[in-house]
Amino acid sequence: MKTITASIITIGDELLIGQTIDTNSAFIGQELNRIGVWLRRRIAVGDVRAEILQALEEQSRDNDIIIITGGLGPTADDITKPALCHYFNGRMIVNEEVRQNVIGIFERIGRPVTEVNLKQAEVPDCCTVLPNRRGTAPGMWFEKEGAVVISLPGVPHEMKGLITDSVLPGIQERFPLPVIRHRTLLTAGKGESELAAHIRDLEENLPASIKLAYLPAYGMVRLRLTARGEEETSLVAELDRHFGLLRERVREWMVIDEDLSLAEALSRLLRERQKTVGTAESCTGGIIARMLTEKAGASAFFQGSVVAYANSVKQEVLGVPAETLALHGAVSEATVRAMVTGALRSLGSDYALATSGIMGPDGGTEEKPVGTVWIAVGSRERIEAQQFRFRFDRGRNIELTANAALNLLRRFILQDEPA
Amino acid sequence: MKTITASIITIGDELLIGQTIDTNSAFIGQELNRIGVWLRRRIAVGDVRAEILQALEEQSRDNDIIIITGGLGPTADDITKPALCHYFNGRMIVNEEVRQNVIGIFERIGRPVTEVNLKQAEVPDCCTVLPNRRGTAPGMWFEKEGAVVISLPGVPHEMKGLITDSVLPGIQERFPLPVIRHRTLLTAGKGESELAAHIRDLEENLPASIKLAYLPAYGMVRLRLTARGEEETSLVAELDRHFGLLRERVREWMVIDEDLSLAEALSRLLRERQKTVGTAESCTGGIIARMLTEKAGASAFFQGSVVAYANSVKQEVLGVPAETLALHGAVSEATVRAMVTGALRSLGSDYALATSGIMGPDGGTEEKPVGTVWIAVGSRERIEAQQFRFRFDRGRNIELTANAALNLLRRFILQDEPA
Repeated sequence: MKTITASIITIGDELLIGQTIDTNSAFIGQELNRIGVWLRRRIAVGDVRAEILQALEEQSRDNDIIIITGGLGPTADDITKPALCHYFNGRMIVNEEVRQNVIGIFERIGRPVTEVNLKQAEVPDCCTVLPNRRGTAPGMWFEKEGAVVISLPGVPHEMKGLITDSVLPGIQERFPLPVIRHRTLLTAGKGESELAAHIRDLEENLPASIKLAYLPAYGMVRLRLTARGEEETSLVAELDRHFGLLRERVREWMVIDEDLSLAEALSRLLRERQKTVGTAESCTGGIIARMLTEKAGASAFFQGSVVAYANSVKQEVLGVPAETLALHGAVSEATVRAMVTGALRSLGSDYALATSGIMGPDGGTEEKPVGTVWIAVGSRERIEAQQFRFRFDRGRNIELTANAALNLLRRFILQDEPA
Repeated sequence: MKTITASIITIGDELLIGQTIDTNSAFIGQELNRIGVWLRRRIAVGDVRAEILQALEEQSRDNDIIIITGGLGPTADDITKPALCHYFNGRMIVNEEVRQNVIGIFERIGRPVTEVNLKQAEVPDCCTVLPNRRGTAPGMWFEKEGAVVISLPGVPHEMKGLITDSVLPGIQERFPLPVIRHRTLLTAGKGESELAAHIRDLEENLPASIKLAYLPAYGMVRLRLTARGEEETSLVAELDRHFGLLRERVREWMVIDEDLSLAEALSRLLRERQKTVGTAESCTGGIIARMLTEKAGASAFFQGSVVAYANSVKQEVLGVPAETLALHGAVSEATVRAMVTGALRSLGSDYALATSGIMGPDGGTEEKPVGTVWIAVGSRERIEAQQFRFRFDRGRNIELTANAALNLLRRFILQDEPA
């Protein structure tokens, strides 16, 4: 079976000067991969007609599918649509369905439709219009010399709607696609190179259809097996066999054997056991609460948090004794233990975690340098605390602390018998 | 002056299948732009030797500088270094300085150095090694037929250190560079197309050296002027004149006339006035606390937060009366007002904000559909509340709510006289 390959072209000066981080490509890559299309390249170019046309020319030469995002907004810095019209030798016409969609959207939000907005209804006559239920700029599907070129708006939730509603079904109908399956596990506590040495023979014995990747992730390493083939049953059986061997070999450091974040793994455990959690965060400033509430349904297991940045909040809300703070300091075992006790009481949760540390770049001392962190996790029965020393910049120290706390709490809960 | 152009090639299957979001390119783009290098393209390719070589070949044809990130880790899925060695007709040799750096790093963290780690010290003999103070994989600087090719590790904080320490100074020494300056302002409350219609004449009168871009950002629009020239004084004067006109024209919707996030703008205002803030977050789940503590120095103005996800936490910690919740519901004006009062008291801050809403996808009712949000901001003197209706997915609704709350609070504080 011929491999169907794709390339993504994202358009916008803001991507090149770093004002916007490109999250669209990651989403599109995931979705293409899931249906068996091999994404060979991602390219970002500026709002420059010649650059857009050159990228399109180059990518259509080597790929079956080109997905273009961005450059479709209503304002003057957008030049993608005319460039595409030219490239496919079309002329611009008004699409009545798109025009009605634009008018309807402005009616619903009670704002006047400007001439600029109505320009969204002009599309090249040589494309199939993909309706955008979430915004004014339509998607466009072109074909030329065997290559499919799909243009989508850059607004993430509009692009996502179009990918799900029109692009994936269209690609699946248009091309014969292979089966691609992944198995992923997350490890903590062993470096990438040590893991590699430990599993080298397993890796060397993988069949050609299965590939292993190491994905370092904030103090942890994710291992991913990817299988590619034509017949699903035998492919999955082979993949699962090798994944079983891998899981067995790294059992000691394995956190979870699915492609989940630590927050998701902890959420699921709490949900299964019908237990709740609360957090008392000093140095992590609310990021753990944020991680636990990012996905829907958090109210089933998440009670709340006290972000106790100021010592007065540690005392007043969490009840950390003034003497503890005075004697041991805010970054100490005694303080995080008291924070857990306070969180269990004030948030009324079954489990709680607490963080306190010096994230940098300032605030370090000889005795407690930047990166010094105390974490405690506990229940009404017992509390455990551990010290960490991270050696990175502020952003990374905060994320490492959050992940360490989630991992400690997950292990702590696993030690309790399920009810 | 000839424009010096660059291209970034990021390497890694994880980027193509969407397991990793590429934040490195945004950082590199920003830094290149700052020193006057025009980033023409960003390309992501998989861990495939032929793809890496093809991208390198294509990009060196059109650009002065190629920056490659990723593909330098110690494990077997990394093939970049041998590919580069081949491309530049070199052979691999052991670099003693890099070897000592690797050994030193493992000594400091108290782990054994494996053979795999020591492979990091093997580099092509045709490059200049750029020392990596933050990790084991060195940077490499190659030159061929007038093009500079720089290879950097993909770990963000290692890459950043190398860019700052070696790459930028090296490029500035090697190439004559123009002056590039940006001026950015943030607006809220007017759509991109309405803004465009409102300032069309200003845009049409911009000189060729100045370019305007519209950057939509979570319910707001950022406007950016970019000037490019050879002589700094006159360029900046011209830029400032046009920026002044733009600022005047959009005054009504302008939030801030610098390239700052709302959280940064609010932080600065609080710092200037020597006031403190606390947050009481229900539906935003801690993201506002996270936004306010992301940058160093937050302890000067941020007291803490109560993430009151469960109603019991709203009652127990924030003192929201049970009757208020029973009568009006958690998503109501009365509840967010009581949450502000409770936050001011329990967190001891000068100002507080509170959020409560239905973020979706579930939980909506006829009367309060998904996207219904109440936000209150206040001080000991007065409290203001406002209802919002967002119509997006969960993630976007949460970020829109956070930004709306930060903006409301900033306006609220600006109404107070500075002390």
